[in-house]
Amino acid sequence: MKKTFVTIFAIVAVLVSLISVPIHQAKSQTPTLWNIYNNTLKTAKYVDLTHAFNPTIPVWSGFKKAQFKPTVAGTDIPNYIQTGQEYTYKTHGFIATAYEFPTDQYGTQLDPPAHWNEYGATISDLPPTYAVRPLVVIDIHKKVEVEPGYHATVGDILAWEKKHGTIPEGSVVMIRSDWYKKWSDVARFNQKPFPGITLDALKFLHLKRKILFHGHEPLDTDTTPTLEGEAWLLRNHYTQAEGVANLDRVPETGALVAIGFAKPEGGTGGFARYIAICPSNWSYGVSIAEAPGAPLPKQPYRLQRDVNGVLKPTRS
Amino acid sequence: MKKTFVTIFAIVAVLVSLISVPIHQAKSQTPTLWNIYNNTLKTAKYVDLTHAFNPTIPVWSGFKKAQFKPTVAGTDIPNYIQTGQEYTYKTHGFIATAYEFPTDQYGTQLDPPAHWNEYGATISDLPPTYAVRPLVVIDIHKKVEVEPGYHATVGDILAWEKKHGTIPEGSVVMIRSDWYKKWSDVARFNQKPFPGITLDALKFLHLKRKILFHGHEPLDTDTTPTLEGEAWLLRNHYTQAEGVANLDRVPETGALVAIGFAKPEGGTGGFARYIAICPSNWSYGVSIAEAPGAPLPKQPYRLQRDVNGVLKPTRS
Repeated sequence: MKKTFVTIFAIVAVLVSLISVPIHQAKSQTPTLWNIYNNTLKTAKYVDLTHAFNPTIPVWSGFKKAQFKPTVAGTDIPNYIQTGQEYTYKTHGFIATAYEFPTDQYGTQLDPPAHWNEYGATISDLPPTYAVRPLVVIDIHKKVEVEPGYHATVGDILAWEKKHGTIPEGSVVMIRSDWYKKWSDVARFNQKPFPGITLDALKFLHLKRKILFHGHEPLDTDTTPTLEGEAWLLRNHYTQAEGVANLDRVPETGALVAIGFAKPEGGTGGFARYIAICPSNWSYGVSIAEAPGAPLPKQPYRLQRDVNGVLKPTRS
Repeated sequence: MKKTFVTIFAIVAVLVSLISVPIHQAKSQTPTLWNIYNNTLKTAKYVDLTHAFNPTIPVWSGFKKAQFKPTVAGTDIPNYIQTGQEYTYKTHGFIATAYEFPTDQYGTQLDPPAHWNEYGATISDLPPTYAVRPLVVIDIHKKVEVEPGYHATVGDILAWEKKHGTIPEGSVVMIRSDWYKKWSDVARFNQKPFPGITLDALKFLHLKRKILFHGHEPLDTDTTPTLEGEAWLLRNHYTQAEGVANLDRVPETGALVAIGFAKPEGGTGGFARYIAICPSNWSYGVSIAEAPGAPLPKQPYRLQRDVNGVLKPTRS
């Protein structure tokens, strides 16, 4: 009987130790925000979904293009600079850049309702909860290869859901068409036919799935004469992303998206930057270990402005 | 003996069931990115650390201020618009905004090395790993109350570490001075004395703690005649945040920061937006449930431009 109790005691001891390991792990796995960074975000793969913008990119024909110029002094500063003189690395130790933006519908965008709605939220009204959301990517690029004017349908969304489950509420849904690859072909990029998303699909995403916003690669939501999709979205107080890139480099499900943009007060457009945060075993993108960001790499050549005022490392 | 075995069996069965619960939980707690969103980011509190910028904000005296204007047509479009005609909600169904930025050192900023370094990375060179990082807030506001020109020291950093542990590698370290509360007092904001951070403290943060970047509330890093802190940072290929707001609304430790900015090619400044992501039990900020962002609230009045070209809901 004594032996039996010893056996029971030994079994209990082993089992208790087995239990205590997962319990302890579960405790240390408490998802505090810094644990999340250490355990997951730190080793994630980051993919930039943003085109850098410059004076030569595609823009809607009704808008002028941006101008990039060196910053000049706005005032006399005795023994330092005269009004109108250009700041240079050599003379002043620094430079800056001046921009003329005839429109805020430029480059990779985040359209606030105020663009089409005189009672709509402006870019500076967007709440801070526009920060990090689940990223859903609906892939229509094979249909677009066959038919460049193809517009994503409710059927395309339901096909995604059949594979991956219901689209999460509050997520960002990007439509992958691979149209972004034509970005440098400025004449072709904005020319119809180009891919879009149907009004029914937009209504489904917002009214049934309650997403935060959708995004697409062209600079328009659809090719209808009235731009019915953009009109419906912005007039109903929704936002949208335009001119998105690199959607072929991110997973259809399971990534997050970081949403960034300049914040001019009352702005009717968003000069945006979208970063996909992908699982650590994803085949594209860079990790923080690969690109820590501090210190940043040195340019191969001295920075000089090109004919468009864009600063580039230039051998000379 | 039979009874004893039954007892052992019962104990084992109970213990196995006890083990299997935590193991199963541990499995479902695998921190996939979407689980992280569902379990933590969805209920977090979001605080905007960004000033909205406009033509009246503080700017360094050597730079001119921005101009905000309505967008006009860049071309004739038959039966629609003539070159130079302003887009209006009434006639065209939409508006847009034009900006003149004499400098990219404007509002809440992210300074890339190229601002002071002709071999430095430009804003469009920053890697996508500038996305979401741990946020450390070092609070010097009580010292600044007594001495407005107080500059944060290595001692202030070590005091933070004594309380909260070593600053994580790759984090963003913001210096809370409460100076941001003077933002609307344009004359005072840029006038010395104002708070800063010592060069030794910057070197400690980058060389010993290997942070991503630091941020401060004024528009300069320090008040030395040579701006020695900014010079050292940018010439050594580091970045920095300036003009940051609301650091009194975020915890000293345990929050994350989402880093966003406009991405002009070769840009020497960053029109930035920083969002603190705080634990769900934090007393400031808004949750996604409180501010889902879609649909956005309707403006109380019609949007109209003020004398500075800034679009605001205006009763008239």
